[in-house]
Amino acid sequence: MENKFQELKTRLLEVNDIWSAAGLLHWDQSTYMPPGGAAARARQMATLGRLSHEKFTDPAIGKLLDALEPYQKSLPYDSDEACLLRLTRRRYERAIKVPAEFTAEVTNHTSESYQVWTEARPANDFERVRPYLEKTLEYSRQSANFFPGYDHIADPLIEPRDYGMKAADVKRVFAELRQALVPIVSAITSQEPADDSCLHQYFPEEKQLAFGLEVSQQFGYDMNRGRQDKTHHPFMTKFSLGDVRITTRTKENFLGDALFSTLHETGHALYEQGIRMDFEGTPLARGTSSGVHESQSRLWENIVGRSRRFWFHYYPKLQSVFPEQLGDVPIDAFYRAINKVERSLIRTNADEVTYNLHVMLRFDFELALLEGELEIKDLPNAWRERFEADFGIVPPDDKDGVLQDVHWYFGLIGGSFQGYTLGNILGSQFFAAATEAHPEVPSEIENGEFQTLHNWLKEHLYQHGSKYTAPEIVERATGTPLSIQPYMTYLRTKYGELYDLTD
Amino acid sequence: MENKFQELKTRLLEVNDIWSAAGLLHWDQSTYMPPGGAAARARQMATLGRLSHEKFTDPAIGKLLDALEPYQKSLPYDSDEACLLRLTRRRYERAIKVPAEFTAEVTNHTSESYQVWTEARPANDFERVRPYLEKTLEYSRQSANFFPGYDHIADPLIEPRDYGMKAADVKRVFAELRQALVPIVSAITSQEPADDSCLHQYFPEEKQLAFGLEVSQQFGYDMNRGRQDKTHHPFMTKFSLGDVRITTRTKENFLGDALFSTLHETGHALYEQGIRMDFEGTPLARGTSSGVHESQSRLWENIVGRSRRFWFHYYPKLQSVFPEQLGDVPIDAFYRAINKVERSLIRTNADEVTYNLHVMLRFDFELALLEGELEIKDLPNAWRERFEADFGIVPPDDKDGVLQDVHWYFGLIGGSFQGYTLGNILGSQFFAAATEAHPEVPSEIENGEFQTLHNWLKEHLYQHGSKYTAPEIVERATGTPLSIQPYMTYLRTKYGELYDLTD
Repeated sequence: MENKFQELKTRLLEVNDIWSAAGLLHWDQSTYMPPGGAAARARQMATLGRLSHEKFTDPAIGKLLDALEPYQKSLPYDSDEACLLRLTRRRYERAIKVPAEFTAEVTNHTSESYQVWTEARPANDFERVRPYLEKTLEYSRQSANFFPGYDHIADPLIEPRDYGMKAADVKRVFAELRQALVPIVSAITSQEPADDSCLHQYFPEEKQLAFGLEVSQQFGYDMNRGRQDKTHHPFMTKFSLGDVRITTRTKENFLGDALFSTLHETGHALYEQGIRMDFEGTPLARGTSSGVHESQSRLWENIVGRSRRFWFHYYPKLQSVFPEQLGDVPIDAFYRAINKVERSLIRTNADEVTYNLHVMLRFDFELALLEGELEIKDLPNAWRERFEADFGIVPPDDKDGVLQDVHWYFGLIGGSFQGYTLGNILGSQFFAAATEAHPEVPSEIENGEFQTLHNWLKEHLYQHGSKYTAPEIVERATGTPLSIQPYMTYLRTKYGELYDLTD
Repeated sequence: MENKFQELKTRLLEVNDIWSAAGLLHWDQSTYMPPGGAAARARQMATLGRLSHEKFTDPAIGKLLDALEPYQKSLPYDSDEACLLRLTRRRYERAIKVPAEFTAEVTNHTSESYQVWTEARPANDFERVRPYLEKTLEYSRQSANFFPGYDHIADPLIEPRDYGMKAADVKRVFAELRQALVPIVSAITSQEPADDSCLHQYFPEEKQLAFGLEVSQQFGYDMNRGRQDKTHHPFMTKFSLGDVRITTRTKENFLGDALFSTLHETGHALYEQGIRMDFEGTPLARGTSSGVHESQSRLWENIVGRSRRFWFHYYPKLQSVFPEQLGDVPIDAFYRAINKVERSLIRTNADEVTYNLHVMLRFDFELALLEGELEIKDLPNAWRERFEADFGIVPPDDKDGVLQDVHWYFGLIGGSFQGYTLGNILGSQFFAAATEAHPEVPSEIENGEFQTLHNWLKEHLYQHGSKYTAPEIVERATGTPLSIQPYMTYLRTKYGELYDLTD
């Protein structure tokens, strides 16, 4: 058994290494690759993707898993080995159900679709991508149908990102959240909007980057096992537990972009860097779900990074970096500026309060499209109507409406968005649990100290990687299943102090 | 036949893509990887190396080559297809003769050996690496013995780098060169050494890099398909014909390092960028041998980049970049400084004239070690003796003697060094042929124009990639086989003007 288990791990390590190499190809493409390299790079990434899929779906892995079943059953449920076998079995069963030709077809299609989208979006031309999106919807349904027996056709598409949640679960949580959220949004947006002009000044790039990276390291980001580069869209990526990188972008006329995207990606990176080093190279060595991952980016970006306590310590430092721009701006004005709530068009720029409405809109459309209740051709209109209903404004064009997010144009429809809001909810839940265990956390933040919080998260969440599923880890770390209460308490407290929330 | 040929190309493309990905892993390791990534990176590179070897030695490739033999014979010798099949057959026959376990063993060994060398060299401790080097020699002999029937045991080790040359050929060429070179070295080094103090001043890094890269682009380096980054040791690497990168390093107290290493790597890059784009992804899409590759780095670095004509145009520009450092230095003094000839310890810092003596010493030792005429334990002493005989000075330690080059400590013994001197010889031969065809080349260089030269090299050399072997391309491009005459004429003319060369 020991031998077979070792053989399985060796095979998984090979898959991991190919996958990590593909990750580096992608990172390089986004950071330093000269334009002439694009065509070959796409091909090389496809080759490695295909290879890792081939290696992972090798029947030898299935045979090893079968042979190891008695061993798995003999182990405690929570042992590393049992968790590794359980996770591998789940992924393997899923992977072998999708024919390689189908995956290749979809990959080709989404590459083309992405290309067309990059041109159609600036041209505000939904009609150009419509046929591609229709094909994508078809592929999405086909993809779900490789896993018959689902309750909802979106379930198999949600599963790889947020295992343990079904469409019905997400709907229930979102309905509850929506009910609590809408009155707050209405109350705030009927008041005078915050003045964030102090953020819209000239802030030299180098100083922005240096400040962000300093905070990032004080959060606990280990630069010995990481680095930051510039990309068009910020992201976190990992090539091993010893090499977890973040990227950011700067706008020299807006302070908020680089700073908060750096803190956001730092949250993702802290999760990955916190995983037990002996998991390196195994499927356990990554965050367990998109919702839990997002909980960490949002926790560090928002709950910590946009808190009054945090800026109590850091604002004087920021002022000394930008004395001309911020020297005369009181901390209260700055704090209101970075927490400005407004009905805006773009999800990625949205504030903490309205953000979730953007997500719910997309999630609901994914379900409706998959169910056949909505057709692609009707999507732009449906978007405008729903947007007006939810936000009270109509997007002036499709560019900043249905064309704004890359997800549907570079991947399947289904399962793409729920993780963002699950992350907001879980971020508060984890933070509340940490604070309950260590009531000194808030005052430490006020002193620019994050170690107690970081250690609690490492101990209860990060170190486990994918050893536990999202529902398991939430329950273990916080003592309860996912709940919107900590999040709503957080929002009501924070924004109740900034705005009048009474009806 | 068409189908089988396509199938072969598809398989070779896969091998190429894995290989290119491994190249990026290496580039990243040398440029941006955080230290924590080292262990996993070594493993990932080994995994990709093993995979590409597995894919290339797949018996299916042998079967395709067999099946395609009648097709190959039906084609003109010089057709792209025939050349591709011939080259692939040669590489395949070679690859299948080396057992995968042997390769893995050697890879592990050389990694260890390299690690030990990185510590042993600064500590001047040959004894620490001695057992590793002994093992390396054993592996080198074993490696050669997978190819029985050789004339000299070094032949199979020279073959993959400089196909078409055997140890006996190299010995003959080197003996001839040595005879012509030694009197010149003696004549020069008995005279007052050139004063190169103007190069040893403070030159800010950014300005050095910008100047070097500007020249590089004027040579014809296409930044749309390339870029430059900083590494500890400069190199050129390629991930596709659309992505050919160079690296450099700067010393702020020495102008010569970054500038000439940039021009050197640019030469390598021009070769790769000049390959026919329709060869992309095939084994034809790289330079044909280490000697021919080095001919291009040396041609652009030395024959162009250290010529009086070149500086006639560029020296005023360089002076305007560094007015304080060079404003008062006459062009003649600068020209003498960058062409200073001296008996020095380190190969990589050696001038054009003495450089080859460093190479010959190493080449002769490789043969003697492989033949069993010299034992590793006697190598440091043998080095000192030979060095004194050739250079008239004794290395004060092993650090700057037998321990100076990485080659033997991170690879096999045999075939590692001859390419450098073959490159010097061939660089002059190609340049002479280009100038004969286009007598305006020298005066163009004087005007900072390189297109006629670059175009000639593209047409007669670069575009063909590995389509022709080194002896074939030399004969095609220059009309004669490899000859030391153009090189000696070049050296005698250039250095005869700088020094008194009469006995």
